[in-house]
Amino acid sequence: MTRTPVVLGLDFGGTKIAVAVGDLSGRRLGVATVDSLAEAGAQAAMARGLTAARDLLADVAPAHELVGVGAATLGIPYDDRVELAPTFPGWDALPFGQLVRDAFPGVPVHLGTDVKAAAAAELRWGALAGCDPGIYLNLGTGLAAAIVAGGTVITGAHGASGEIGYNLRSAADVGIGADERTILEHIVSGQALETTGSSRLGRPVTAADVFALARTEPDAAVLTGEFNRELAMHVVNLAIAVDPVRIVAGGGLARSWDQIAPELRRALDAAVPFPPELTVARFPSDAPLVGALALGAEAAGAELGEGEEAFA
Amino acid sequence: MTRTPVVLGLDFGGTKIAVAVGDLSGRRLGVATVDSLAEAGAQAAMARGLTAARDLLADVAPAHELVGVGAATLGIPYDDRVELAPTFPGWDALPFGQLVRDAFPGVPVHLGTDVKAAAAAELRWGALAGCDPGIYLNLGTGLAAAIVAGGTVITGAHGASGEIGYNLRSAADVGIGADERTILEHIVSGQALETTGSSRLGRPVTAADVFALARTEPDAAVLTGEFNRELAMHVVNLAIAVDPVRIVAGGGLARSWDQIAPELRRALDAAVPFPPELTVARFPSDAPLVGALALGAEAAGAELGEGEEAFA
Repeated sequence: MTRTPVVLGLDFGGTKIAVAVGDLSGRRLGVATVDSLAEAGAQAAMARGLTAARDLLADVAPAHELVGVGAATLGIPYDDRVELAPTFPGWDALPFGQLVRDAFPGVPVHLGTDVKAAAAAELRWGALAGCDPGIYLNLGTGLAAAIVAGGTVITGAHGASGEIGYNLRSAADVGIGADERTILEHIVSGQALETTGSSRLGRPVTAADVFALARTEPDAAVLTGEFNRELAMHVVNLAIAVDPVRIVAGGGLARSWDQIAPELRRALDAAVPFPPELTVARFPSDAPLVGALALGAEAAGAELGEGEEAFA
Repeated sequence: MTRTPVVLGLDFGGTKIAVAVGDLSGRRLGVATVDSLAEAGAQAAMARGLTAARDLLADVAPAHELVGVGAATLGIPYDDRVELAPTFPGWDALPFGQLVRDAFPGVPVHLGTDVKAAAAAELRWGALAGCDPGIYLNLGTGLAAAIVAGGTVITGAHGASGEIGYNLRSAADVGIGADERTILEHIVSGQALETTGSSRLGRPVTAADVFALARTEPDAAVLTGEFNRELAMHVVNLAIAVDPVRIVAGGGLARSWDQIAPELRRALDAAVPFPPELTVARFPSDAPLVGALALGAEAAGAELGEGEEAFA
């Protein structure tokens, strides 16, 4: 029995933690998912993710040699903390990179933000291949985007490019701190739609529920209409700034894409001088995980060619 | 007398046309400016610019050998037309590149948009040197920006990146065509401030006048306050999207920078997760012209190193 080299990818999201094992040819050997249970604490969530990863490795690659680990997360990961992850209590103080390194001693680890990892996966193997520039739009628990240009993801001076969830919603918000104003993510995100939907519809609903209900319930349709219009304003302005070939949407709300895309399409056509293409991601639900596997392969020093099967 | 190789740069703006001659070491040999007189027509403006260029060449480099021409313009230039130049009547239908080529037969010509040429000049020799990413903000007759990343200016899929003058101002504008809504440039630009200022103050004033008056006249201060607040909203959101090291402002309104910068600074500090530096351009009034010279040098195939004197 040979010891096959494998890479591990972990994607820590606000709702779920996904782990995957792949080989260096780009083949995905196995995937597992556990709930984040953010309310149980950041340390516990990290521990659950790492256990799931070890279990998966033992299941699908018992004779493996782990040669690289990629870890993607909401927020901006460092060895000793995570920046810009306010929706996950305690996540900011978690020594994220260090905990992952400690769990796999001697194995090289690369870290990345989930949305940029997703954009990298789409750029390398998915719907952004060949797009220069292009935009990845993450419609998940939170809201963020990533700009790709020149064949790479623009990370920004502090790894914070694309964090449009912090956007100002109107000129009246100018000069007011993020803590004292309603940032865009408080209105346009899966979490926001769940909160507002549950309050306005008078019963607990998920964001997906609100979109499903909008087909028949006028109250829900009002909510998704507001959501789509405000999302469209900011996507339009980002498209004007970047002039992308294509905008590619992923994240949990991409499941409701047929109820989001038409309004976005109309808004782009009406306002952008050269309207870009608009499509759902190749890996709408797990692009960050595919990106984490790519980070793991990158950590292993493996060169994965464009023509390869994409951890899919 | 040797025939010194020189390059020519032309910058066609909505208010003035600037021409410059430089040598290949990056030294600027002479500059001339003529009014655009947009109301006299696009053909006449182009002819006046070309005449000024020929006169300047004869004056400062009588024994010259012209080895490259760079031409920058408002809008997006092509050989047979100019896109997105609505403020200059007839400019869209002008065979821009062809006319420049015809004027200097046998000399290689490179075209560029004025703001991207300016950003390239600032990136190569000015206030954006080493910024990855960075933003150039043009506060001139119109409003536009340019994103630099990976050591280059992002042009966009259609040469239209950074055309934030077309931005949506609120979610209420979603789905409405640019012709039927008040685009951002109609509020935030030198031309807009001149028009609104003249109307609201009851006498003809330039944008610079409005800023000067704002120091003492409350009515003018209201106007510049509105201008700054709306500008700040869009600069903040662009900064959140890009996470730049630095934002660098140029264009005619940069002369009023001391009355624009404080509000922008406050807005960035309050809203952007990692607030970027903010400064006036190295070539605030003629970065597009410096960029046009760089385009000319590029056309000549000359490699101008970073350490060289920058056509300044």
